[in-house]
Amino acid sequence: MNVFKKIFTKNSRPLEGGIFFEAIHKILGFKPNNIEFYQKAFTHRSSNKLDLKGNPINYERLEFLGDAMLSAVIAGHLFNEVPSGDEGYLTKMRSKIVSREHLNELGRDLNLIQLVDSKVPFQHFGENIHGNIFEALVGAIFLDKGYPYCEKFIYKRVIVPYVDIAKLEGKVISYKSLVIEWCQKEKKPFHFDVFDDNGNDGQRYFGVKLSIDNKIIAKARATSKKKAEEIASKRAFFAFQEKMDKKL
Amino acid sequence: MNVFKKIFTKNSRPLEGGIFFEAIHKILGFKPNNIEFYQKAFTHRSSNKLDLKGNPINYERLEFLGDAMLSAVIAGHLFNEVPSGDEGYLTKMRSKIVSREHLNELGRDLNLIQLVDSKVPFQHFGENIHGNIFEALVGAIFLDKGYPYCEKFIYKRVIVPYVDIAKLEGKVISYKSLVIEWCQKEKKPFHFDVFDDNGNDGQRYFGVKLSIDNKIIAKARATSKKKAEEIASKRAFFAFQEKMDKKL
Repeated sequence: MNVFKKIFTKNSRPLEGGIFFEAIHKILGFKPNNIEFYQKAFTHRSSNKLDLKGNPINYERLEFLGDAMLSAVIAGHLFNEVPSGDEGYLTKMRSKIVSREHLNELGRDLNLIQLVDSKVPFQHFGENIHGNIFEALVGAIFLDKGYPYCEKFIYKRVIVPYVDIAKLEGKVISYKSLVIEWCQKEKKPFHFDVFDDNGNDGQRYFGVKLSIDNKIIAKARATSKKKAEEIASKRAFFAFQEKMDKKL
Repeated sequence: MNVFKKIFTKNSRPLEGGIFFEAIHKILGFKPNNIEFYQKAFTHRSSNKLDLKGNPINYERLEFLGDAMLSAVIAGHLFNEVPSGDEGYLTKMRSKIVSREHLNELGRDLNLIQLVDSKVPFQHFGENIHGNIFEALVGAIFLDKGYPYCEKFIYKRVIVPYVDIAKLEGKVISYKSLVIEWCQKEKKPFHFDVFDDNGNDGQRYFGVKLSIDNKIIAKARATSKKKAEEIASKRAFFAFQEKMDKKL
């Protein structure tokens, strides 16, 4: 019976085993409890949905909630991470992390737009849809699982992959240039190769690998070649950090 | 042994049973775990304290953290409380609640300044010290007990006594005028009496009682007579709400 049930609901949006549920599960890294919050987070106002009381169902209110939770989690992280930073420093760093451009990048890299329920073609959305949906998703997590899961998600999807204090402070402009500088000093050959390009104009992805001394040191995937090269360089940088710290 | 220990530490700042600990306990409504966070929240920069790493010990960083937690808790409250409010409405209501004036009022009403450790006389502080210390206190609660206790504290000290959506929306300008209007319609005698005035100019408190038909209906204490009258009127209004709803 359960097997039949699973087959029948496989393509439906809400239920466990359904495409939407599994996509959300994968993005979150943990199982949602109430999928309805997430459905709302991915519903664009053009869908014109209303609840039983006549209130519109779309992501806009969740965006407000998610923005507040994101700011709180990032504040907590910076507070602990930079004990020497004063109030002005912490405020400045946070606004860099939660800038519109940065949130759009996060949403784009997670390809959240593919899950949006809308009556408007995706091409008509502005750039901000990526960041807005990302914030709404954080809001949905708060309602569904509470603050600790917001923290968990933001650590996994924002802080670990993107928040680099040295870079935000402007001390490191580009990891790619650090790596190149080091290779040139050490007289080691290096090259970046694109190993994957899905060629899809709407949501193009690039895979880049960085080789030094003809050994593959790091790989990364991102929405532009430049970004993938930077992420691969950052990975290589941290892998080699001890070595570089001594020699740079 | 424990009895002796308690006596010996009774007047010291940090320990359970000490004046500072018990004052914090009373303000919070729950027991602090690590009193050091709260000591920091009440330390003014003029005290020039440094930690072992040379970082200044004062409330300013905690203020940043508390501000973020306060915004998040109020966002969660408004989201649930006003399901028909759109993003713009929620943003506007939140900024009314966490306005500088409102936070100063909260801090002043809790008389937080009496606990501040400073080398500058209190008279030299600006008005904002009240709100700043209030925010720092929220930050300390977050570090000490986590997000759910921030919620608990903010419900008890901000939302329940101060957050009145109808009034914030401008639908009710003054509860005092509502009460007066009702008494006049009903031809009921009413009067406000000051029953307490501590007469201390630095931190003056007024107690006001509202009598209708020669019965005491509500009492309130606040830092001005006008404010105490308004709070007493609000209490009377909600006590009589059913009655008034029918007759107004």
